[in-house]
Amino acid sequence: MADQTPTDRTDENDQKGSYVTQGKSFDRDMNYIDDRITRDGRDGWPVEAGRYRLAVSRACPWANRTIISRRLLGLEDAISLAVAGPTHDKRSWTFDLDPDGRDPVLGYERLQEAYFARFPEYPRGITVPAMIDVPTKAVVTNDFQRITLDFATEWTEHHREGAPDLYPVAQREEIDALNTWMLHHVNNGVYKTGFAGSQEEYEKAYRDLWASLDELEQRLADRRYLMGASITEADIRLFPTLVRFDPVYHGHFKCNRQTLSTMPNLWNYTKDLFQTPGFGDTIDFQHIKEHYYVVHTDINPTQVVPLGPDTSIFMEPHDRDRFETDTWGPGGAAPEPPLAAEVVDPEHTPLQVTGR
Amino acid sequence: MADQTPTDRTDENDQKGSYVTQGKSFDRDMNYIDDRITRDGRDGWPVEAGRYRLAVSRACPWANRTIISRRLLGLEDAISLAVAGPTHDKRSWTFDLDPDGRDPVLGYERLQEAYFARFPEYPRGITVPAMIDVPTKAVVTNDFQRITLDFATEWTEHHREGAPDLYPVAQREEIDALNTWMLHHVNNGVYKTGFAGSQEEYEKAYRDLWASLDELEQRLADRRYLMGASITEADIRLFPTLVRFDPVYHGHFKCNRQTLSTMPNLWNYTKDLFQTPGFGDTIDFQHIKEHYYVVHTDINPTQVVPLGPDTSIFMEPHDRDRFETDTWGPGGAAPEPPLAAEVVDPEHTPLQVTGR
Repeated sequence: MADQTPTDRTDENDQKGSYVTQGKSFDRDMNYIDDRITRDGRDGWPVEAGRYRLAVSRACPWANRTIISRRLLGLEDAISLAVAGPTHDKRSWTFDLDPDGRDPVLGYERLQEAYFARFPEYPRGITVPAMIDVPTKAVVTNDFQRITLDFATEWTEHHREGAPDLYPVAQREEIDALNTWMLHHVNNGVYKTGFAGSQEEYEKAYRDLWASLDELEQRLADRRYLMGASITEADIRLFPTLVRFDPVYHGHFKCNRQTLSTMPNLWNYTKDLFQTPGFGDTIDFQHIKEHYYVVHTDINPTQVVPLGPDTSIFMEPHDRDRFETDTWGPGGAAPEPPLAAEVVDPEHTPLQVTGR
Repeated sequence: MADQTPTDRTDENDQKGSYVTQGKSFDRDMNYIDDRITRDGRDGWPVEAGRYRLAVSRACPWANRTIISRRLLGLEDAISLAVAGPTHDKRSWTFDLDPDGRDPVLGYERLQEAYFARFPEYPRGITVPAMIDVPTKAVVTNDFQRITLDFATEWTEHHREGAPDLYPVAQREEIDALNTWMLHHVNNGVYKTGFAGSQEEYEKAYRDLWASLDELEQRLADRRYLMGASITEADIRLFPTLVRFDPVYHGHFKCNRQTLSTMPNLWNYTKDLFQTPGFGDTIDFQHIKEHYYVVHTDINPTQVVPLGPDTSIFMEPHDRDRFETDTWGPGGAAPEPPLAAEVVDPEHTPLQVTGR
């Protein structure tokens, strides 16, 4: 396990309302349980269909990546899904969406129980995404940056036919550099803007965020996806932030130079992915808004959840077909529709899909 | 003086942070000091050039109307202007922008002093706009709905040459009805949305607001201004709300179905007026944002003021020239530039004007 220095564990499970520290910038705890599930099982956790359960909330952008990755790779039958509700209390994400408020496989009311099953004194925030070992009902890892990479590279024998290569060997160095840059300046940049503890910290974070979005806007001017003609891990990491931008970050986090929908390349890219199987079908706008507006009481004390924005615009036509396109890569094909049990409530999304 | 029932006096001078009442809708105190300054002086306050001072804040939409009206009618030489700072404490708007923090004519630090000079026990909020009698340094009226009508109809002998008829006799009935409807559903509708004390009250206010904006969007589909080819009092009442919409009401008040800039008629109408002498030159976006985000601590406890939105878009071309146009009415002409002393800080607006 990683270093135990207690630092802020915001957005996942911090004390209710303690996201902003007066006068300080926002500092995300980046220490995670870094065990890995691998083909060779070197950490004691071998890849094995049916053994692990992926715990997520559809609200959380970090968990959203794993849901997309699992969809694109067709890992639904190999790795089951536990979906926590959009809001959580200071102790844990909870399975309040399930009958009797318990995850039907683990029997838990709170994700915290899976963490305590492994580390009875677990001192950090209870975060999603987390991979749970079903036989022992104990958490294996919550290392969100590693989970999707291992889905792409260690779980290959369980990939669906036509699954894309999301982390091509020849592009890994560039993808890694881009992902690290996006993490600090964009994915976490919106949080640094929204949870700034002073006007000065806010302005610093805001300017850095918009300079970074301007760079991405430029990058997407001559290619369909971040790495070119095909979808990769980099797109999976950016999309969850972009899809939350106008519904949450623009107002709630004061990332409001303009709406994303006025950035031609970023907006058309967002619509394009939203309309691509495996991306938009993972998005629950109601869960997303409820999470941020209800949990962050120190920036939204009334806990009123906005009715806007109108998300039907995510379904409007995009202009990305004009670029060289090989969305799923050589021999690849789009994923099947989601499992019937995993279809997002049609009241919470403009995308109407039928499950299989 | 009007009824003294104590009710909420929000946006002007309430207790800091008490704008939202848990479980309740927002209820604006509509009792004002209803003395009038008239040609016949029947309330003891005759129209007289140089006698009265108009106290405003550029932040306040209700005060904004009087600044616009004074500009359009050319009353700058007849009625002087006292500009309070954008934020206020629980006691009063303050003249903190002036040298030594005192209004140079009245000698007051706080607008409250003018209210107490007339009513030593004045029990209500200290609101702008207010007309102050300079000889006695006492408030005459803060009846914001009456002040602009009296500027248009009682102060005619001091109007500039080419001043528009903002309240034409033949249209008064329709203007009055429209103004009353806009007051409740739009001008105050944004406050009811932002200060709703429950999810249910918020949703009720939001739906009513957007239904009303949709009606205005329709109304502006076949005419340049609200009443037709010429500017009237109705436009003066709507513009201050529209100009604040994307900078404040969209995020801070959760009026976020869409930005105003995506409503073709309302947005082009807003840009058109912004670019019309007497409208945009009264707007200080920095004061506007500071007021709302700093004063309303119960919905923005961090008091961080957003850097966005980019207001340069208010200067983009509009499409309203295609309608029948007689902006200033028969024999009318645009007003002169503002007085040099009243030009808005160029750092606070995209409109660059030179004062006279």
